[in-house]
Amino acid sequence: VTRAAEELSYVASPEASRLAGGASTRVAVVVPHLSRWFFGALIEGLESVLREADVDVLLYHVGDADDRHHFFARLPARRKVDALVLLGLPVDDDERQRLELMGVQITAVGGQVASYPYVCIDDYVAGRQAVDHLLFLGHRRIGMIAGNDPDQPGWPVAVGRTEAYHAALREAGIPARDELVATVDWGGDLGAQAMDRLLSQREPPTAVYAHSDELAVGAMRTIRRAGLDVPGDISVIGIDDHPVSELLDLTTVRQPVRDQGVVAAQNLLCRLRGEHADDAVTLPTQLVVRRSTSPPRPRPDVAGRPT
Amino acid sequence: VTRAAEELSYVASPEASRLAGGASTRVAVVVPHLSRWFFGALIEGLESVLREADVDVLLYHVGDADDRHHFFARLPARRKVDALVLLGLPVDDDERQRLELMGVQITAVGGQVASYPYVCIDDYVAGRQAVDHLLFLGHRRIGMIAGNDPDQPGWPVAVGRTEAYHAALREAGIPARDELVATVDWGGDLGAQAMDRLLSQREPPTAVYAHSDELAVGAMRTIRRAGLDVPGDISVIGIDDHPVSELLDLTTVRQPVRDQGVVAAQNLLCRLRGEHADDAVTLPTQLVVRRSTSPPRPRPDVAGRPT
Repeated sequence: VTRAAEELSYVASPEASRLAGGASTRVAVVVPHLSRWFFGALIEGLESVLREADVDVLLYHVGDADDRHHFFARLPARRKVDALVLLGLPVDDDERQRLELMGVQITAVGGQVASYPYVCIDDYVAGRQAVDHLLFLGHRRIGMIAGNDPDQPGWPVAVGRTEAYHAALREAGIPARDELVATVDWGGDLGAQAMDRLLSQREPPTAVYAHSDELAVGAMRTIRRAGLDVPGDISVIGIDDHPVSELLDLTTVRQPVRDQGVVAAQNLLCRLRGEHADDAVTLPTQLVVRRSTSPPRPRPDVAGRPT
Repeated sequence: VTRAAEELSYVASPEASRLAGGASTRVAVVVPHLSRWFFGALIEGLESVLREADVDVLLYHVGDADDRHHFFARLPARRKVDALVLLGLPVDDDERQRLELMGVQITAVGGQVASYPYVCIDDYVAGRQAVDHLLFLGHRRIGMIAGNDPDQPGWPVAVGRTEAYHAALREAGIPARDELVATVDWGGDLGAQAMDRLLSQREPPTAVYAHSDELAVGAMRTIRRAGLDVPGDISVIGIDDHPVSELLDLTTVRQPVRDQGVVAAQNLLCRLRGEHADDAVTLPTQLVVRRSTSPPRPRPDVAGRPT
């Protein structure tokens, strides 16, 4: 019965006419994390453009699988929004069907989702910029701390950044070693734990590529607590250019986060007005060299041994 | 003419009847910063309770004085919200009058505003916990990095944290020294600049109390770049317990940020239902000792000299 009622409510509320009718336009922003810088900066960009256009921004935080079910089952249909922006949030087939029944504009930001228009970075390129920098510096034993949200398996952001690592090593003729990869949920404290794992080997990596700056910051803490030097003993590189990275001298690959929100909102407004907008926008990333990376220092105990 | 129209629209849209009428309840969340952890965590707490109650959350980011004018002049009246939550956002007399003409519930979170119901911490107590800890460790030359948003002069959060510093020193019989206080806008890079100023003296402080962890993190960078040790040469303490603080071993005074959002939303829902809720809620803070503070190390060149 509940399911039937839910489905009915979807069919009963297409909202494409709001814009034309002069009623206030409303955009739902759906986000998995609010207290992380990345998502706050994305929302800041989105909101600045939408507010300027006098559009209402409705915020939906869907933190875990339960939240997501609740959201997809109930909220959008009742609230009569004109468009929906998914921030770093993948959807499964069932959820996609529900979204499409709403008949509203859907946009993805900070990661591609299904076949919806998107604005994001090229995660493979960003990852290559990071790993290629470590290879250029002369590192051959390169570890990876990979981000993985258990509620979002197969998230293309993580997939692209992981592929970049394997491709860069392969091209450099370096065999893959499973023990040099630690996969954890996103978040600084988990980066610290991942680094614990990488250090619990007889020959730890001389450089670590982390999928995000927060993971990299956690890794740096573990390295320093072990009495080792960054970058003297182990180089660390992240992706993001989080505000804290400049303060910690973390070498990273900068992505324009606020701008992704701005462009997504601009394109969404175009589509709502019936104008053309690019469906696939990829903003460029760039290496920012600071002091957490350097060429590897030969270690007396392993010098000359093949890696 | 614009002003008259604006004022008319205010009077024309009191919205107290929405709840009773069964229409969806809508709460406007007004916030000066979205990409800072503090505000993201507050919104996360608010949103979790409001979503559970099936309330729509409309987000308004008002970053500077222009945004604020725009917001207060136009948005609330047109959008017909049932309540408004001010997150760390002071209002002047004119803005207060406009808010009151709307006739909706107003709540402040993360700082007291006018005479609206609020949920926050006691900033004086938090500041005393920080400065008293430095005094207990034996510091007598204590610097302060004070936060000050130029768009929000007289913000009670900064006032309370500043008063705590002066009162603690006074009680300890230590004369105030203007050159030990650096006031900057909130933000890590500005904490670094403030520390530059504190270090440009013949006798810098042996300990620094920063109004926030982000300011403290910036200060630590400057200290380390000067070739000095934290806490060996200079102790640093902040306020917040920002997620990065644990990773950086920063001693701080923890405030429950998400909880402030949760309690504010719960109390707001009570008021919207006509039930009683406390108008003044102060949540406790606590010292979190990590490795950025220690007793002062006697310096050869100043030993024995009165401070």
